[in-house]
Amino acid sequence: MLPRGRPRALGAATLLLLLLVVVGFFLFGRDPEYGLRAAATFEGDPYGSRNRSASGLHPPLPPKCELLHVAIVCAGHNSSREVITLVKSVLFYRKNPLHLHLVTDAVARNILETLFRTWMVPAVVIRFYDAEELKPLISWIPNTHYSGLYGLMKLVLPSILPLSLARVIVLDTDVTFSSDIAELWALFAHFSDKQVVGLVENQSDWYLGNLWKNHRPWPALGRGFNTGVILLWLDRLRQTGWEQMWTLMAKRELLTLTATSLADQDVFNAVIKEHPELVHPLPCVWNVQLSDHTLAERCYLEAADLKVIHWNSPKKLRVKNKHAEFFRNLHLTFLGYDGKLLRRELFGCPNQLPPGAEQLQQALAQLDEEEPCFEFWQQQLTVHRVHITFLPHQPPPPRPHDVTLVAQLSMDRLQMLEALCRHWSGPMSLALYLTDAEAQQFLHFVETSPVLSARKDVAYHIVYRDGPLYPVNQLRNVALAQALTPYVFLSDIDFLPAYSLYDYLRASIEQLELGSRPRKAALVVPAFETLHYRFSFPNSKAELLTLLDAGSLHIFRYHEWPQGHAPTAYAHWREAQAPYQVQWAADYEPYVVVPRDCPRYDPRFVGFGWNKVAHIIELDAQEYELLVLPEAFSIHLPHAPSLDISRFRSSPAYRDCLQALKEEFHQDLSRRYGAAALKYLTALQQSQSRA
Amino acid sequence: MLPRGRPRALGAATLLLLLLVVVGFFLFGRDPEYGLRAAATFEGDPYGSRNRSASGLHPPLPPKCELLHVAIVCAGHNSSREVITLVKSVLFYRKNPLHLHLVTDAVARNILETLFRTWMVPAVVIRFYDAEELKPLISWIPNTHYSGLYGLMKLVLPSILPLSLARVIVLDTDVTFSSDIAELWALFAHFSDKQVVGLVENQSDWYLGNLWKNHRPWPALGRGFNTGVILLWLDRLRQTGWEQMWTLMAKRELLTLTATSLADQDVFNAVIKEHPELVHPLPCVWNVQLSDHTLAERCYLEAADLKVIHWNSPKKLRVKNKHAEFFRNLHLTFLGYDGKLLRRELFGCPNQLPPGAEQLQQALAQLDEEEPCFEFWQQQLTVHRVHITFLPHQPPPPRPHDVTLVAQLSMDRLQMLEALCRHWSGPMSLALYLTDAEAQQFLHFVETSPVLSARKDVAYHIVYRDGPLYPVNQLRNVALAQALTPYVFLSDIDFLPAYSLYDYLRASIEQLELGSRPRKAALVVPAFETLHYRFSFPNSKAELLTLLDAGSLHIFRYHEWPQGHAPTAYAHWREAQAPYQVQWAADYEPYVVVPRDCPRYDPRFVGFGWNKVAHIIELDAQEYELLVLPEAFSIHLPHAPSLDISRFRSSPAYRDCLQALKEEFHQDLSRRYGAAALKYLTALQQSQSRA
Repeated sequence: MLPRGRPRALGAATLLLLLLVVVGFFLFGRDPEYGLRAAATFEGDPYGSRNRSASGLHPPLPPKCELLHVAIVCAGHNSSREVITLVKSVLFYRKNPLHLHLVTDAVARNILETLFRTWMVPAVVIRFYDAEELKPLISWIPNTHYSGLYGLMKLVLPSILPLSLARVIVLDTDVTFSSDIAELWALFAHFSDKQVVGLVENQSDWYLGNLWKNHRPWPALGRGFNTGVILLWLDRLRQTGWEQMWTLMAKRELLTLTATSLADQDVFNAVIKEHPELVHPLPCVWNVQLSDHTLAERCYLEAADLKVIHWNSPKKLRVKNKHAEFFRNLHLTFLGYDGKLLRRELFGCPNQLPPGAEQLQQALAQLDEEEPCFEFWQQQLTVHRVHITFLPHQPPPPRPHDVTLVAQLSMDRLQMLEALCRHWSGPMSLALYLTDAEAQQFLHFVETSPVLSARKDVAYHIVYRDGPLYPVNQLRNVALAQALTPYVFLSDIDFLPAYSLYDYLRASIEQLELGSRPRKAALVVPAFETLHYRFSFPNSKAELLTLLDAGSLHIFRYHEWPQGHAPTAYAHWREAQAPYQVQWAADYEPYVVVPRDCPRYDPRFVGFGWNKVAHIIELDAQEYELLVLPEAFSIHLPHAPSLDISRFRSSPAYRDCLQALKEEFHQDLSRRYGAAALKYLTALQQSQSRA
Repeated sequence: MLPRGRPRALGAATLLLLLLVVVGFFLFGRDPEYGLRAAATFEGDPYGSRNRSASGLHPPLPPKCELLHVAIVCAGHNSSREVITLVKSVLFYRKNPLHLHLVTDAVARNILETLFRTWMVPAVVIRFYDAEELKPLISWIPNTHYSGLYGLMKLVLPSILPLSLARVIVLDTDVTFSSDIAELWALFAHFSDKQVVGLVENQSDWYLGNLWKNHRPWPALGRGFNTGVILLWLDRLRQTGWEQMWTLMAKRELLTLTATSLADQDVFNAVIKEHPELVHPLPCVWNVQLSDHTLAERCYLEAADLKVIHWNSPKKLRVKNKHAEFFRNLHLTFLGYDGKLLRRELFGCPNQLPPGAEQLQQALAQLDEEEPCFEFWQQQLTVHRVHITFLPHQPPPPRPHDVTLVAQLSMDRLQMLEALCRHWSGPMSLALYLTDAEAQQFLHFVETSPVLSARKDVAYHIVYRDGPLYPVNQLRNVALAQALTPYVFLSDIDFLPAYSLYDYLRASIEQLELGSRPRKAALVVPAFETLHYRFSFPNSKAELLTLLDAGSLHIFRYHEWPQGHAPTAYAHWREAQAPYQVQWAADYEPYVVVPRDCPRYDPRFVGFGWNKVAHIIELDAQEYELLVLPEAFSIHLPHAPSLDISRFRSSPAYRDCLQALKEEFHQDLSRRYGAAALKYLTALQQSQSRA
């Protein structure tokens, strides 16, 4: 029999306590990934349970529509490509608005500003921070890691991010998400009051210091922590005097060590060794590290689910790992993922459309899908994502008469690039119309071509495909806007210029004093064509004329579209010794060299037809002099007709739409140039009545 | 003061009870999507909480490595395309092994068997069930729904699936997953003892019966339930006498109603109306229905997360919905997703590699990445996913002398298809080497071309891209294997046959009695080429000869590779009135007509070079007679050199690898044909010593 009175009450209390323990176990204990065992070390069980049904409890996700903050340091062309793949993976799984804090050098800022402006992803805010300004804060630390000075910048984030920002997720550019970043953000809730930084333990033996004789790493707690994925509790860090703390620690270690080997990670680990109470260990699945000798397998074989993959080897995707194929596939998913599909709204969150998106949506909504030229109007309104200088690029040194070759292409003309490089030794600005997956094939193509990879003066700008019609003039404008020399040669990708053309153009610009003439001038480069894929390219005008007379070469489109080049006056050109002026005439579309600030191409011309004609009209309307150069030429190589030209030829509806574009163009022209534009309309009407 | 003794114990018990309620609330009550409120109706709050932090508890997921079962009914070409996109979306998020139970007609089975065999996804088991056998079970039910008889087959799944199978998820082909299917499977755990079928409520007013005057739908509980996503508890269904139950109900309703309008769904709802205790209502996010007048917005605006989207309108992706773009993007993600990336292992689960995968992995692992021809060996070993008859196709009626044109192409030759259709009025079997995204562009291309969409006798087989070299002979073999006529014309995509060629070949086959000759024969179709994209195609041999004499046409590759066609003896052909026999010679590669059971192309030849030469050697080794047809011809149209031919021309390493392939081929030839193969080796050595 139970004792009465107080003891009985005690018994009830004990029972209650027991029950609470049981409840506690159910609520927190079943999920070793997030619950009491979150602080387990790598040797323990940091993977989460083997049995997913036992790990059914997740930490509460942040409320719907809560803004999550992410900081990334990014510098240079290659890191900019990387960071975009990372951002795609985050956007794919995210369900919250995001604020990206990007610490960038000038190159990355230029690339990423253009990209995000044209990407127009709803509910994403971008803020840039100038990496240049941070350099003095960390340049005193010698660092031998491949990330260089930029690798150290994560240390100073608490000082440079806005004071209003309490918490932030910090990511290396070489990580890939395969889960919702909100789940990572949710782990802040498990920090104790003292903890300021959340990190995953290192999945290598580096910090154990026994990798080779005299291997002396920076101090760390056991295997140490990896800083590819960090939860930073910024306001607590500021309160604990983080800046002074890490600076002192780094200075102390640098008395005996010559440099950091793993950049910021060495410093973070040194601080944590001294202050282990500051770190909140994260489950290993949030930073699965794929270096060559990784121990990550212990993590992922057990885990139900991988959250973040970290390519933390200088070899990146080429890292040797028996499961490398699996991880590569996850990464390739986002490399090739069509970024425009990420322009998704977050339902039920306040409108967070990027600048311009609302007007664009309205304009698109006003189009009539049943209208015969719907595809044309839609294509004109399409905002394509643009990734400028996709590959490493060195801008040409400033030279007053320098000329950039400007052209555009899609995948089916890649094979022209090597020949073009052999013919044109100067700078080029090329717009490529590709899918995300094709952009990766293009990268591989350049990397495996000795000719192309040797050239750093060719800037490749990716304009991502969207829509059925080739946006030829939008592409030309992207390439033109990125040309950095005072003059541009507006060419097409199927043409090979004379070997001497680059030098000859610069000399001509200088001799003609183009920069200081009373009238602006466009230099005409006469165009020819061959029907043979393999032919010996003429080394001089004399050789060209011989081939012309032998019928191996022709004036470009002499049979199909003579008015396109007739005003160049080829008969005169044969004999000419000096540049000569020619007059505009209807349908004239020569290839020209003009100052970089020339009028842009009219982006309404999409698909095939009239896209260059309109540009030459614009030059003429702005009173450019047309001067034909006597020694200049370029030659068109044969190719199968494009899909657009095939549609133009076979579809009367397509031709009707082109006609509508022309008429719109002329109305605009009249509006802008008044009576002076009359001659173009008259010419159009005459040529139509002839047709 | 508290009363003592018994009342005190009662107090403690009450406290305990209270606590248990609180615990119960924490354990089950916080998640209205899965817990007590799961049975809420559409008018209530079936979305899950507005605040995700409050819905932190998920139902326990099935254990890691547990096999999940999915059943799908699929018939015809279009549904087969759909189901693949559905399966991709499931595979993308899944973390469990899957068993797919596919109820198919002959067309879908043929397509899907090939697809899954070549897809080689680990941890996926496929079993087919013949839809034909099920027809008698349901054909007595008149149905006006667009899905036809197949729409009703879900009703009989409990009878036809294996008795050992206790539970199964049933999906329509027009759903897309955006979550792990294990989360759906987990909802079985919430079924009460009586519940046998889990369904999401209808998100339209159809069953309310007030859509138009005299609109009389089948009986349903309120808005009724949608059967696009079903959890079927099979063994309970069998125990409750499901078959008898639904049959009786359907018969009763058909006394007053003329037919089902929504197929199986009408019957399910009629049963549920009578036995509401059988249904377990699922949260709406598991079947977000996008019909034209959908009420789904109520679901998805509130939900933190969409799980499954259902395109349940006959308009499918073209459905009008103000958020259609959002949903289309989710769907397009998987339409364009590279399926080979889904060949992912499930870490930590017992090995579940599909047939052949292990040998393949071993063979690939034995290759040396540093070896100069590594790319060639790797490409040869690559198993490409193959989707045969990607578009609706009617097999040609059996005719003893019929000929199928066989060719292969990639995206850059699409524009040849219309012209080819105009020149060849007979059946064609074409292999297309495309990415998943390009396959969608191709679909759009055919749908918008009146010429192509009118032709149901052209079979398009997609071979999915994988690797840097064009697997030309693997493609030819796919197209050849799918040709259904007794004879095939082995052509290339850049050739247009004479308008009369199809009729002429059939007549020749008949006259020459090819089927009953003592020796097998290959009929040679002489090949010519033009350098002009636009030219008038000759209507007769006489016209062809005139163009040849005028220099507008040439013998194919007469200048670059004369030995390829020299044995055809063009001078003799000019005058020939009857078929004449020619002898094999080194490097001969004519276009030929052969019986369908001819030797396959040697798949080791990838990229450019020698791929047809090897095939003609094989024909000669098997003693095919080579007969040139006096009135047959086809003409090659110009195009830019392919990437492969460009690499062949520019890279000595590439040519060395081709040489290695040739040598390997000859060794195999000697092995198979013994001394008879000597003449080919001698010829090769002679031609090499000349070069």
